Amino acid sequence: MAGWSGNWRIASIETRRGAPLAAADRLDVRPIGAGTVEAQGGAAVWTLAGTASNVRYAERREITELRSRQAPLGRDEARRAALIPIRKSAAWWELAQDERRAIFEETSHHTRIGMEYLPAVALQLYHCRDLGEPFDFLTWFEYAAEDAAAFEDLVRRLRETAEWTYVDREVDIRLVRPA
Amino acid sequence: MAGWSGNWRIASIETRRGAPLAAADRLDVRPIGAGTVEAQGGAAVWTLAGTASNVRYAERREITELRSRQAPLGRDEARRAALIPIRKSAAWWELAQDERRAIFEETSHHTRIGMEYLPAVALQLYHCRDLGEPFDFLTWFEYAAEDAAAFEDLVRRLRETAEWTYVDREVDIRLVRPA
Repeated sequence: MAGWSGNWRIASIETRRGAPLAAADRLDVRPIGAGTVEAQGGAAVWTLAGTASNVRYAERREITELRSRQAPLGRDEARRAALIPIRKSAAWWELAQDERRAIFEETSHHTRIGMEYLPAVALQLYHCRDLGEPFDFLTWFEYAAEDAAAFEDLVRRLRETAEWTYVDREVDIRLVRPA
Repeated sequence: MAGWSGNWRIASIETRRGAPLAAADRLDVRPIGAGTVEAQGGAAVWTLAGTASNVRYAERREITELRSRQAPLGRDEARRAALIPIRKSAAWWELAQDERRAIFEETSHHTRIGMEYLPAVALQLYHCRDLGEPFDFLTWFEYAAEDAAAFEDLVRRLRETAEWTYVDREVDIRLVRPA
């Protein structure tokens, strides 16, 4: 959780779909329970919470490969981060488990694409739909400045997938860790 | 949600595994948000919350069959109910999605067994693990007095499955709807 906790400078907030989040210049992130974090923009302009929870789609062989390749959060050199809160549509949530898995991986290759950017991009997913939050997920990424182009490539490819047609709210918050 | 809301008389509270819940003689159930309920035993002796959320294992063909056979909550004749809060072990939550699905259905036949008791037993599952609650699920069942033996058969069979070896806390609360 090292990478999450602490203070970050907000470099930009881009509303990509749905309602925006108000402008803020700092993001304060702190643990509020086991695996649960709260991210507060500016002087409590907005507050988002999420919990690490269990995997929803990843199969054992995928988890094994992810673990063998992924980097931890909080690396010294990873001074850039992105917090991208996402909400998916009611149509997505009404799908059966096999239908969501098929779109997520067999069609959109979400895990397979993400794997290509390991270990340069470290990531953590927090779930918040069951918490009654305004978003369903808080996605968190950390990377070094020299890997910024690779990160842009990753998010561009994910946004082109069939899975992303179910995203009905998305705000892209870019962060810099103060020296 | 008709079946959930309102006041029920607690006929019995049996702790089957893990820490008990304190004795109480009434259960008051009320909606506290979209798809989210709160169940309070006695004079706030304990309070449990859960949210309907999306399906985690059911595939489309299973959902279609369930919907064609299930009865709604709140039937006049269903004056018996059971609230069975359940927690599963860390070992369960560390399993990959395909491993949990295999234990849940291919090995334990959870959905297939439940299907045999439709429409006599009406049921609703509420999720609460991500809410930081003491249980992972609130399972809720409603049935007529004449179907009580069938309901006992259902819970006995589920408790004999491989899935149930991962249940590390379970309290069985039986309820009667006041006339």
